[in-house]
Amino acid sequence: MIKPQTLKGFRDFLPLEARKRQYVITKLQSVFESFGFEPLETPTLEYEEVLTDKYGEEGDQLMYRFEDNGKRKVAMRYDQTVPLARVVAQYQNELSMPFKRYQIQPVWRAENTQKGRYREFVQCDIDTVGTDSALTDAEIIVAALRTYQSLGFKNLTILVNDRSVFGNLPVDAIITIDKLKKIGEEAVCKQLFEKAIVGSIADGKKLLHELTQHRGTPRLIEVFKTLKESGIQESVFRFSPTLARGLDYYTGAIIEVETSDYPYGSLAGGGRYDNLIGMFAGRQIPAVGISFGFDRTIEAMEALNLFPANLANSSTKVLITIFSEELKEKAIKTATKLREEKINTELYLGEIKEKNPLEKQLKYADQKRIPYVVIIGPEEVTSNSITVKDLQTRTQEKTTVEDFLRKIKKHES
Amino acid sequence: MIKPQTLKGFRDFLPLEARKRQYVITKLQSVFESFGFEPLETPTLEYEEVLTDKYGEEGDQLMYRFEDNGKRKVAMRYDQTVPLARVVAQYQNELSMPFKRYQIQPVWRAENTQKGRYREFVQCDIDTVGTDSALTDAEIIVAALRTYQSLGFKNLTILVNDRSVFGNLPVDAIITIDKLKKIGEEAVCKQLFEKAIVGSIADGKKLLHELTQHRGTPRLIEVFKTLKESGIQESVFRFSPTLARGLDYYTGAIIEVETSDYPYGSLAGGGRYDNLIGMFAGRQIPAVGISFGFDRTIEAMEALNLFPANLANSSTKVLITIFSEELKEKAIKTATKLREEKINTELYLGEIKEKNPLEKQLKYADQKRIPYVVIIGPEEVTSNSITVKDLQTRTQEKTTVEDFLRKIKKHES
Repeated sequence: MIKPQTLKGFRDFLPLEARKRQYVITKLQSVFESFGFEPLETPTLEYEEVLTDKYGEEGDQLMYRFEDNGKRKVAMRYDQTVPLARVVAQYQNELSMPFKRYQIQPVWRAENTQKGRYREFVQCDIDTVGTDSALTDAEIIVAALRTYQSLGFKNLTILVNDRSVFGNLPVDAIITIDKLKKIGEEAVCKQLFEKAIVGSIADGKKLLHELTQHRGTPRLIEVFKTLKESGIQESVFRFSPTLARGLDYYTGAIIEVETSDYPYGSLAGGGRYDNLIGMFAGRQIPAVGISFGFDRTIEAMEALNLFPANLANSSTKVLITIFSEELKEKAIKTATKLREEKINTELYLGEIKEKNPLEKQLKYADQKRIPYVVIIGPEEVTSNSITVKDLQTRTQEKTTVEDFLRKIKKHES
Repeated sequence: MIKPQTLKGFRDFLPLEARKRQYVITKLQSVFESFGFEPLETPTLEYEEVLTDKYGEEGDQLMYRFEDNGKRKVAMRYDQTVPLARVVAQYQNELSMPFKRYQIQPVWRAENTQKGRYREFVQCDIDTVGTDSALTDAEIIVAALRTYQSLGFKNLTILVNDRSVFGNLPVDAIITIDKLKKIGEEAVCKQLFEKAIVGSIADGKKLLHELTQHRGTPRLIEVFKTLKESGIQESVFRFSPTLARGLDYYTGAIIEVETSDYPYGSLAGGGRYDNLIGMFAGRQIPAVGISFGFDRTIEAMEALNLFPANLANSSTKVLITIFSEELKEKAIKTATKLREEKINTELYLGEIKEKNPLEKQLKYADQKRIPYVVIIGPEEVTSNSITVKDLQTRTQEKTTVEDFLRKIKKHES
């Protein structure tokens, strides 16, 4: 016997979880498309050289890489931004610019697993390529905000910074300063000192003070003006001069979305990267985008109770039970009729016991949270009726297929 | 510069193609759910031993396998049936039986690439686990038929066989006989003789003749009776005693869906496999399912013109142009308003040229196939109106935002 088990950091999604994921994806798609973002899919495997050297040293280490059967060095998708850059370069003559795409696919990172961190996880990205206007930066922010609002989130804040705020500070310094919120001023200054970026803890404090006193760049002031014109209240966005978001490739705006209702890290993050596509295209093509943390978002929605209650129910509306071998045909025909009327209908497929045939069938409907159970026994056949059990109200009534159809259709709408 | 290229057998899906794929997936999900199948997702990577030795020698060779960073032997999903078997064994205490699931995920096979054959491709499966009733076999067939009908296919045929029709014939013989339709009687008999399964070509012919004279098993007769009770015309399904579908693990019904409108191989195929789950569960758990060939289906839909014409249009309904830097705010506010009314609306994000500002913007709308373009110039601002260009009819009119909204909402419904 082979032990049925999954790899650490990899997950199965049973129906209830899978339905929740589909719910979120459908909501995201709808907001993304309302802004004109169109779907893109890229392969799971890329030539290794397409992905390496884009995510810093850590990225190359965490990347799933191997030799395929034809001895090609290949790597599994690590994010969706680098594949997008490859796509833009590869199809530059086909794509109309500005190119706005969304992408919702899994990525793989061999991270140490911990709560909320997996080795296979879905990313949802929107990006606009081919324009460096402040309007585009603002639109990404508006779209991100509308996305989370459509999922029911409240008390959202958009933190925005500009890479130029850091001036000539080395990457190492920026990455350290980025931890301010997480580890506090003391620890940041200590690290800056240990890394010989500043000569003393006091100099570190001075550096942080100067940064936090920054009034924002002209570019960000333009972005903020556009946000207001787009109907976003000023209290929702905030200039955050220490925000960096680790990644190497940002060149302009840096964006993070959070909610005070679930203060366990950001929900989404992104920024402007005007040089990345050039690595594939041989000429600069500016771009800005944001990536939505799918698992974090679902976690937060669970905690804040943002999933509609009916997601816990089966997508099946009605279970047609089978009373006996003789009455099976009647059940089949009723199920067919309900499906023709667009009602998601199951026919009980398990074994039909002669004694107490309905007991197990009702239990099945209960376990699967199917709202209605239809019984067609000898009495119902004689009177050309059906008995309907409503498992939510625990009531039952004798009715006809037509009346029952009318009732659930009314209930649906 | 890094060469922007994809691996052989791996594909990018640009927006138009990605939209078509989403269209098909949405249709499939809707039919699957109408029969009570619920979504399941499994990981891309599995422990190698979970996947190997299930698909015959060829399968093990074509499987993408490697050692991960933790020196675990892992393999990429090769189909969705074996992961389902693993899931059923792993969660047997959580899943209510019969368990009906659908799964739509990519799989990977290092095949020689050719037209319509890729190394990464999507599979769509429905399976019912935990019952060996003929009703279940029939339901899988009905669901498959309804699926293709919902996509607009006509002249569909369901071929059905039963593994027991082959009696004690060795697997090798069955695989050869399965090729009858493809390579013809002569070639099959020759191969049977060369493989020493029959003593002469004539014996081969006799064997084929006996098979093709088979009248069907009692089990199949029951399945066919249920199909009729489910409203399927007799002309649609056919007993096909030489059908085998290669795979090792089938134990009962074998099913294939084809249409005479696109006679280039089957659209879907499946069958009953009552022993596979036992390899993980340690006890027999019967199952039956069918896998839809996603790429073949899309190919056939292209050829038969089954995609709705409006899929070729952008999902964006309206492009709001920007006449000048001064009038940008007006454009932003109009776009915001349209989005609030659930109209997918793009704001032009490219550079605004002072001379002929609209030329490039109209070209963008044309390329992206956005149906309506809104112009808000100085004249429109003065008269509190907008000019709408209908790019399909090549007409334009001066109107108000409110009237335009009414018009497209009416058009939508």
